[in-house]
Amino acid sequence: MANKDPLMITDKDEMRKWSRSMRAQGKTIGLVPTMGYLHEGHLSLIQESHKQTHLTVVSIYINPGQFSPTEDLSTYPSDLLGDIQKLKSVPGGVDVVFNPKNLYDYGNNDNGCGVGLDQEGGKVVSCVETGGMGHETWVRVERLEKDLCGKSRPVFFRGVATIVTKLFNIVEPDVAVFGKKDYQQWRIIKRMVRDLDFGIKVIGTELARDDDGLAKSSRNARLSPDDRQKALSISKSLFKAKFAAENGQNDCQELRNAVIQAIHEAGGKIDYAEVRL
Amino acid sequence: MANKDPLMITDKDEMRKWSRSMRAQGKTIGLVPTMGYLHEGHLSLIQESHKQTHLTVVSIYINPGQFSPTEDLSTYPSDLLGDIQKLKSVPGGVDVVFNPKNLYDYGNNDNGCGVGLDQEGGKVVSCVETGGMGHETWVRVERLEKDLCGKSRPVFFRGVATIVTKLFNIVEPDVAVFGKKDYQQWRIIKRMVRDLDFGIKVIGTELARDDDGLAKSSRNARLSPDDRQKALSISKSLFKAKFAAENGQNDCQELRNAVIQAIHEAGGKIDYAEVRL
Repeated sequence: MANKDPLMITDKDEMRKWSRSMRAQGKTIGLVPTMGYLHEGHLSLIQESHKQTHLTVVSIYINPGQFSPTEDLSTYPSDLLGDIQKLKSVPGGVDVVFNPKNLYDYGNNDNGCGVGLDQEGGKVVSCVETGGMGHETWVRVERLEKDLCGKSRPVFFRGVATIVTKLFNIVEPDVAVFGKKDYQQWRIIKRMVRDLDFGIKVIGTELARDDDGLAKSSRNARLSPDDRQKALSISKSLFKAKFAAENGQNDCQELRNAVIQAIHEAGGKIDYAEVRL
Repeated sequence: MANKDPLMITDKDEMRKWSRSMRAQGKTIGLVPTMGYLHEGHLSLIQESHKQTHLTVVSIYINPGQFSPTEDLSTYPSDLLGDIQKLKSVPGGVDVVFNPKNLYDYGNNDNGCGVGLDQEGGKVVSCVETGGMGHETWVRVERLEKDLCGKSRPVFFRGVATIVTKLFNIVEPDVAVFGKKDYQQWRIIKRMVRDLDFGIKVIGTELARDDDGLAKSSRNARLSPDDRQKALSISKSLFKAKFAAENGQNDCQELRNAVIQAIHEAGGKIDYAEVRL
């Protein structure tokens, strides 16, 4: 069943203008930030937004600020037309798809050296810096960004916090919805909203899984059947650990080792496995 | 001539509620962020705000996030009642004085260690960290914050960018007015607003000086007559350098050395003197 066509907006001033005109009419706005290549996990975020607000904006933007030059920015999957079809399949559809071209292009060549700082003064770490876009302001959630995924992806959470701040300032939503699949990200966004006093309610939704237990994910959608089978070792071993913990196993080291062993045996390379309270 | 009494607001939710209700009535809002102990420089910012918007909010908040533990947070001058009298003396007065108690107190003891990071994981650098307030999100304008004043005050611009972000998110103004006396700060705020896509117009006003040429400043107001005389070497030598440059002196090193020499001779200790284009 196809619902209404979303309004497509690519310009940030037009986006803000739309939001302000809607708010002036007493409408509340929900934002679902995505990098596209949508799956059922995203669609559940949209349904949550529908419950919270009159209107829903879905942003589709692959953020170069959260990729280091050695990561998969250039091969990150995208399918805008497919995404729009999926958005139309959600009951109620969505009101706006915000699909900007480049949120770090400020339309001039002023690269921030105005008071005499040269390029060498800044750290070159994400695809934004290496792209020479002149952007130099970053939001850092200094403790939560360091550990877990932050260890192997040092620019990631800085880039996420910054692009979410930008999207909040452009869309000016009342509510924003994130998936708890990316649990550390979820905690970082919550902390950032508290610490920077954003007037925005942040909602987290549980992760969606395929029938075999694999988390729904844009990257997981591209796994070969063989790799997919191996990847199941992650959810299987985590569920096993959860069951063990619920039934009295309170040795974190043993829980952790069992997960590591199961993933290793399936041929996986592990960035980290940690038990956190 | 006394103008209207400003509405006094100390609670951030009440502040945002006021702004939203005014905006819903079609009013535009100007924000003048200050640390209090107001002087004519501040009052000129308010007059600029009056030109730009229907309503003006003046925030008075001494921001611990921009002081290192060795700086003058505890002795920074304040005089709220005197400030309110001065605000009433401005033609048109002001609409709101936002005077929060502690913008880093989030009303709980959650210090950000939720995913197992301990206090040691974070850098302890400003009075916010040493105060144990649990705040951990900072806005960094990574290149512009490093040089000039940033060299001798490493936490300063991080603290300024962060508190301005917080005030923007609480007050949600259409326009914000800053003095160009703090020129590096002015450039940093402009860059931050661009890079984080705030929907706020930032206005800079020229600095105000006393008749003898000394910049109007809360800290300068506390100089002894003797120190005040010495401090005049700063403006005098800068005016002299300006005059020399306008009359053909294009050797930056000579311009700089003349300023340094004049301030030294008056007994001043110099953090930096730089010529920037």
